[in-house]
Amino acid sequence: MLTALREEVYRLHLELPRHNLVVWTSGNVSGRDPATGLIVIKPSGVRYEDLTAENMVVVDLAGRVVDGSLKPSSDTLSHLVVYRARADLNGVVHTHSTFATAFAALGRPIPAYLTAMSDEFGGPIPCAGYAKVGGEEIGRAVVEGIGAGPAILLQNHGVFTVGSSPEGAVKAAVMVEDVARTVYFAVSMGQPREIPPEEIERAHRRYVEEYGQ
Amino acid sequence: MLTALREEVYRLHLELPRHNLVVWTSGNVSGRDPATGLIVIKPSGVRYEDLTAENMVVVDLAGRVVDGSLKPSSDTLSHLVVYRARADLNGVVHTHSTFATAFAALGRPIPAYLTAMSDEFGGPIPCAGYAKVGGEEIGRAVVEGIGAGPAILLQNHGVFTVGSSPEGAVKAAVMVEDVARTVYFAVSMGQPREIPPEEIERAHRRYVEEYGQ
Amino acid sequence: MLTALREEVYRLHLELPRHNLVVWTSGNVSGRDPATGLIVIKPSGVRYEDLTAENMVVVDLAGRVVDGSLKPSSDTLSHLVVYRARADLNGVVHTHSTFATAFAALGRPIPAYLTAMSDEFGGPIPCAGYAKVGGEEIGRAVVEGIGAGPAILLQNHGVFTVGSSPEGAVKAAVMVEDVARTVYFAVSMGQPREIPPEEIERAHRRYVEEYGQ
Amino acid sequence: MLTALREEVYRLHLELPRHNLVVWTSGNVSGRDPATGLIVIKPSGVRYEDLTAENMVVVDLAGRVVDGSLKPSSDTLSHLVVYRARADLNGVVHTHSTFATAFAALGRPIPAYLTAMSDEFGGPIPCAGYAKVGGEEIGRAVVEGIGAGPAILLQNHGVFTVGSSPEGAVKAAVMVEDVARTVYFAVSMGQPREIPPEEIERAHRRYVEEYGQ
Repeated sequence: MLTALREEVYRLHLELPRHNLVVWTSGNVSGRDPATGLIVIKPSGVRYEDLTAENMVVVDLAGRVVDGSLKPSSDTLSHLVVYRARADLNGVVHTHSTFATAFAALGRPIPAYLTAMSDEFGGPIPCAGYAKVGGEEIGRAVVEGIGAGPAILLQNHGVFTVGSSPEGAVKAAVMVEDVARTVYFAVSMGQPREIPPEEIERAHRRYVEEYGQ
Repeated sequence: MLTALREEVYRLHLELPRHNLVVWTSGNVSGRDPATGLIVIKPSGVRYEDLTAENMVVVDLAGRVVDGSLKPSSDTLSHLVVYRARADLNGVVHTHSTFATAFAALGRPIPAYLTAMSDEFGGPIPCAGYAKVGGEEIGRAVVEGIGAGPAILLQNHGVFTVGSSPEGAVKAAVMVEDVARTVYFAVSMGQPREIPPEEIERAHRRYVEEYGQ
Repeated sequence: MLTALREEVYRLHLELPRHNLVVWTSGNVSGRDPATGLIVIKPSGVRYEDLTAENMVVVDLAGRVVDGSLKPSSDTLSHLVVYRARADLNGVVHTHSTFATAFAALGRPIPAYLTAMSDEFGGPIPCAGYAKVGGEEIGRAVVEGIGAGPAILLQNHGVFTVGSSPEGAVKAAVMVEDVARTVYFAVSMGQPREIPPEEIERAHRRYVEEYGQ
Repeated sequence: MLTALREEVYRLHLELPRHNLVVWTSGNVSGRDPATGLIVIKPSGVRYEDLTAENMVVVDLAGRVVDGSLKPSSDTLSHLVVYRARADLNGVVHTHSTFATAFAALGRPIPAYLTAMSDEFGGPIPCAGYAKVGGEEIGRAVVEGIGAGPAILLQNHGVFTVGSSPEGAVKAAVMVEDVARTVYFAVSMGQPREIPPEEIERAHRRYVEEYGQ
């Protein structure tokens, strides 16, 4: 069932350790099949090197396991709340990547001091307040705080990113950590130069229209 | 003798350099066989790439080499003191991983500013006082200070982690360094938000009950 | 067309992720063929692992695609402006490497506190003011600010390096990040010792004359 | 000529990038053959992946190339000055590893805040004053400042380590960077606890006597 999406979500999980966004079992990717509305997600507590396309778990929007013999990620409900609210999204990623989570520990957004942030995020990366693990709170905090962008920090916790495809959400997770790291080293040396908001917007529009094939 | 445990302890040693917790020969893993009470541990001063299941050393709780042609780790006595005091533990890991050891150099615990710490550690990671290498002092400091958690820092020295299995202790060693690194970058930017102790406890209970397969 | 240069520029792109100078698709290398004046450059938005010698794009100095089925890098015009102004250069590299970009976020040059900087750069690495992405501004800022050296930072943006060969420009990109990282850690601990300008010059001359085969 | 030592020195060069002590061509290892007094050293400006046992260069103590078709490292004279003064040493390593060089940029020793430093170095790692590249100054600064230990920093420059074997010098280079990194993160958080000098000495003696096979 959903062989191609299982393969894709499995393969994208390997990008998380490869880009140093996770350790042990600490992050997960999900993808939605637009035709059936079903979600493919990581099994809970399984290490990245033990993942296969076959042990990915398929759930419906209500969280029922539709296919797969393992329990889905303990973060599944957070992903589902996002998918329920946003029909435009087919990919969600959650990590505790180091520098993004350092900003999250302080409850601070990542200011848009870099042209890479104008391009990818169109402004600062917001930080939602503390949300309890285990219910719908985290998913709702993501939905309410993420706006039109692909990424949000959760206070004391980590990062959620979204995309129109699972790969888009993974790319955003990689870019969040990269800009968080650079901004960290910048702010720890002094006060970075501000990029005027209108220039951020102009550069973002250009990027969206011209970049890639 | 103890072929399966030798293989497991050997294989777990490879996780240490893979997760950047050690350099050269600077950390070690041990595992206890519940049936015989014997301990499998790293040979002293052998590089990780020269380890094999066969050159692991088997010792009894008194520290006598029962099987193996090499000298056991110079930290063996510290591991044994932990096993003697704690019948519930079958795995011990010692590293000097960078960020955890930086906190240890200041004699400071790692505060529980992250939900990942609520989950894995159920609170701050404590730091024991200075203990002399070479006798039972280090093992006793671990036993006295570690409480119900899986990890403790030793002032000016490094980290010990424990588990009901050797893999559990290795996972804790990986997670200690990961959260130490994130907390370091957070505290160096400002004052992280506190998570209320009752929320740490609630989240920890949930994690222990629900996470994994 | 330009088979050898395509192969070289392709191969040099692999050095960027290998030296942790880029993530996802965030940097590019170009090389000029001295015989024809044509430029080989990365296709836009293609990940490093999907690059091949064949999908490199060949453009002329006016920016027309002369060979290749993909769109060239969105930074192509910046590279071209450099090649038009500097007949002595046959390689250009652009990255957002972390530590160099942290200095760039503050609009600060990297001071020449290291003998490695005397050797490779002959002095501080300058930082140009903010230049808008999307026109000739960035290329002109590079040409005007880089002087006789191989590297320049662009405020809020990243790094451009140049060389008489594409490999020379890649080496400079690697060295910029290496010295930026070391200088960052030095300045964050206190005030580094100054190397007198005449000693920087003497050491640079010696390096240029004596180093290598 | 000196086939086994060439092979060993070649193989040890691969440890430098593997432990992130060097980039591009920025560090070198040499070994002395006790029987002939000849030195095997890296060729100048050759990248680590292009090194072979065969392209290592053999020089005598006066610096004459005795075997090899490439120019020896531009740091050869510094190595030779050390070998001439210290008949007990058969290995020398030079790097610009990041954290050690950050201390060197400030002209500061690395204080012995870690038990790993008691063990390996028996005290702080000293820092020599500025010495000009290109003559005997650097080698003399190493000889005069290194004392009984295996490592010394050179102001604004980098690290030299020595050993009774080339492998011992490489191990010291790895350990210098590891402890420099940990001490950096410790001092940037606050004031580390001091280890009393007599305890450093006791621990060092124990380590030298008991560690390894």
